[in-house]
Amino acid sequence: MTLENSIIVLAKAARQSARKIAVCSTTKKNEVLEAIVEKLASQKTKIQAENQKDLDYGREKGLSNAMIDRLTLSDKVINSMIQGLKEVALLPDPVGSVKDSYVRPNGLKVSRVRIPLGVIGIIYESRPNVTIDAAALCLKAGNSIILRGGSEAYHSNMFLSSLIHEALEDCGLPGNAVQYVPTRDRAAINVMLAQEEYIDLIIPRGGEGLIRFVVQHSTIPVLKHYKGVCHVYVDEGADLSMSENICFNAKVQRPGVCNAMETMLVHKAIAPTFLPAMARHFLDSGVELRGCPKTCEIFPKAKPATDDDWGTEFLDMILAVKVVDTIDEAIAHIDQYSSNHTEAIVTNDYSRSMKFVHEVDSSVVLVNASTRFNDGGQLGLGAEIGISTSKLHAFGPMGAEELTGTKFIVLGDGQIRE
Amino acid sequence: MTLENSIIVLAKAARQSARKIAVCSTTKKNEVLEAIVEKLASQKTKIQAENQKDLDYGREKGLSNAMIDRLTLSDKVINSMIQGLKEVALLPDPVGSVKDSYVRPNGLKVSRVRIPLGVIGIIYESRPNVTIDAAALCLKAGNSIILRGGSEAYHSNMFLSSLIHEALEDCGLPGNAVQYVPTRDRAAINVMLAQEEYIDLIIPRGGEGLIRFVVQHSTIPVLKHYKGVCHVYVDEGADLSMSENICFNAKVQRPGVCNAMETMLVHKAIAPTFLPAMARHFLDSGVELRGCPKTCEIFPKAKPATDDDWGTEFLDMILAVKVVDTIDEAIAHIDQYSSNHTEAIVTNDYSRSMKFVHEVDSSVVLVNASTRFNDGGQLGLGAEIGISTSKLHAFGPMGAEELTGTKFIVLGDGQIRE
Repeated sequence: MTLENSIIVLAKAARQSARKIAVCSTTKKNEVLEAIVEKLASQKTKIQAENQKDLDYGREKGLSNAMIDRLTLSDKVINSMIQGLKEVALLPDPVGSVKDSYVRPNGLKVSRVRIPLGVIGIIYESRPNVTIDAAALCLKAGNSIILRGGSEAYHSNMFLSSLIHEALEDCGLPGNAVQYVPTRDRAAINVMLAQEEYIDLIIPRGGEGLIRFVVQHSTIPVLKHYKGVCHVYVDEGADLSMSENICFNAKVQRPGVCNAMETMLVHKAIAPTFLPAMARHFLDSGVELRGCPKTCEIFPKAKPATDDDWGTEFLDMILAVKVVDTIDEAIAHIDQYSSNHTEAIVTNDYSRSMKFVHEVDSSVVLVNASTRFNDGGQLGLGAEIGISTSKLHAFGPMGAEELTGTKFIVLGDGQIRE
Repeated sequence: MTLENSIIVLAKAARQSARKIAVCSTTKKNEVLEAIVEKLASQKTKIQAENQKDLDYGREKGLSNAMIDRLTLSDKVINSMIQGLKEVALLPDPVGSVKDSYVRPNGLKVSRVRIPLGVIGIIYESRPNVTIDAAALCLKAGNSIILRGGSEAYHSNMFLSSLIHEALEDCGLPGNAVQYVPTRDRAAINVMLAQEEYIDLIIPRGGEGLIRFVVQHSTIPVLKHYKGVCHVYVDEGADLSMSENICFNAKVQRPGVCNAMETMLVHKAIAPTFLPAMARHFLDSGVELRGCPKTCEIFPKAKPATDDDWGTEFLDMILAVKVVDTIDEAIAHIDQYSSNHTEAIVTNDYSRSMKFVHEVDSSVVLVNASTRFNDGGQLGLGAEIGISTSKLHAFGPMGAEELTGTKFIVLGDGQIRE
């Protein structure tokens, strides 16, 4: 069988299984999640033996220590997968919930009911725990899943997927509801992205290169974010200590993630009092500052920012800083450079807080809180499958509900159209 | 300027205007709709003169009478555009409405608020009234629009778009919020479909060929339906007169539209009593019947159906008829042949009605009502921009709300992440 045919067979099997998973009760789906928990616990030694093959191969290929670290299925990582499964089991099941319900003048009872999306393809890099985390959330929302992880995690991913397959069959459900693309050949991704007939949605998780590749080649809808270039704007008259806490948290608490602050905008009226102390605090904590001319004037230890620094996702202990004349200049800067991910204002002015949340075009807009709250768990969605920075279907963190759609159910007693 | 550059300039202008339209009040947007109404009324003679150019060109090119009819902007069509605008002005504005709102344990006030999608591209055929109807609904939801109609309606579409442009500017808004692609060159569509950076959504309206072309070439998300192969299943024990009314209405009331019934499934227990009278009624009204062997046995005037008849969208006075042994056979037939558009059951059995709405995977599933109700107006959405048969973002008729997304607004008082 050719590569193309084997992927098509796999995608067709996913589509067929999807109809069975879609109509499962919550109890049955949670039973599957519990069965996966048991397999992870009882097969830990085998999981780690398969993972060792990947680690040996990775070391041979000269992967960095950071990559090896992300690839490793330590006891701690396996326990966190188990914990994640238990949390997903406790989440409310979105399927069947009614979004809207009303009676038409002719007596038709119309409701919009949540249904699974169908077949979801997940294309990801490095961390093999995504295999379990993503499959669990997709299953909870009643979907079939096709997984394709990084080639460096091949053995780990194949084995973890086989455990999910077994768990499904143990519960009397089609094992093919969760499948792993059984080849390291990258051409398999191109074939997968052309199966519009069988796959309803693709979610890529990884670096910008992977995501651009997926968007370019997919005829299937893709939900993704390229990057998070998040801004905090410190407004005129903002509480100084609150501003410093929020900016410090947004930059330093975990600088390598997409919801960390990359650019700080400061109103000129507050800059002379706010910037010196804030900048010293950053510098003392190892944050490199790249400032506009006014920033460098107020705080000469800042390096001058280049044009490229605005709009850069540093993912590191680096911060671009700009002094602005007005909130309009701050919003225009965000409009030009942000990635529509997360922006925050620190202010005590009512109308400017309203203006900021109204006019800033990002998936999460915050007043007086850290950008680090753009996260499914933090915003109350439970687990998240990713963050979307485009507005169709989902904008912001995506939880189980974002893995469903709605259909219209119409109950009549003989109505016909005049 | 090359064709490609001119389309990019146009798409960039749409994106810039989008930020202005997105934050407009409902009053301002309705003012624009009223201004368009006035222009249509006052410029009727000029509209019809431009339309005449298209009609002359169309007759020269040998367009069919039906095509010429669809192309004609008669007084009646212009009045219905005016009526449509007034109805859209009366619709509730989805922008700003809150989908969900709650307080997190740390005191963060989280809400999900409806926002415009941004820039919507509409690619359509023949009817120039779509120019007004589609633009009105997109504007109401706060979006910018790029329109590209059929080349045979070029002069009509260009002139109608220029009226909208003027109306926007008269109201102090950027005229480029509604633009028409100013060329008949089909290559413009390919360029448009590659402007992922500036266009958020493409809605194609027209025949299956156009829609497949758009899906194949677009890197922008597309909402569409290819076709409507709608089924009615007449269950064992269904009320005979209700069944006959619903099936007749679903087939005959307007056979050329996507929500008309194309295949009728009949349970074997009711077939001997239901089918003969129903079939005679159809035949007397000019409907050609193509039946399975059992149907032809019960009603010998039916032609034998070929394999191709199942799953065909006739859009005509032709109906495929099949007798099934069980509701499971009916659902399996629908699963195999339907286009996920609209299916109905006629039944008086509670559990089978529930089974049907639960298991049938279509955008609108009805009990004891005609398939003809899959329509934005009929289901209470007001005007509709089209019907979607895929589940992402919208499934079924799409009204103003489906032209919006949501963003998270988070109000805090200094919260940081631990």
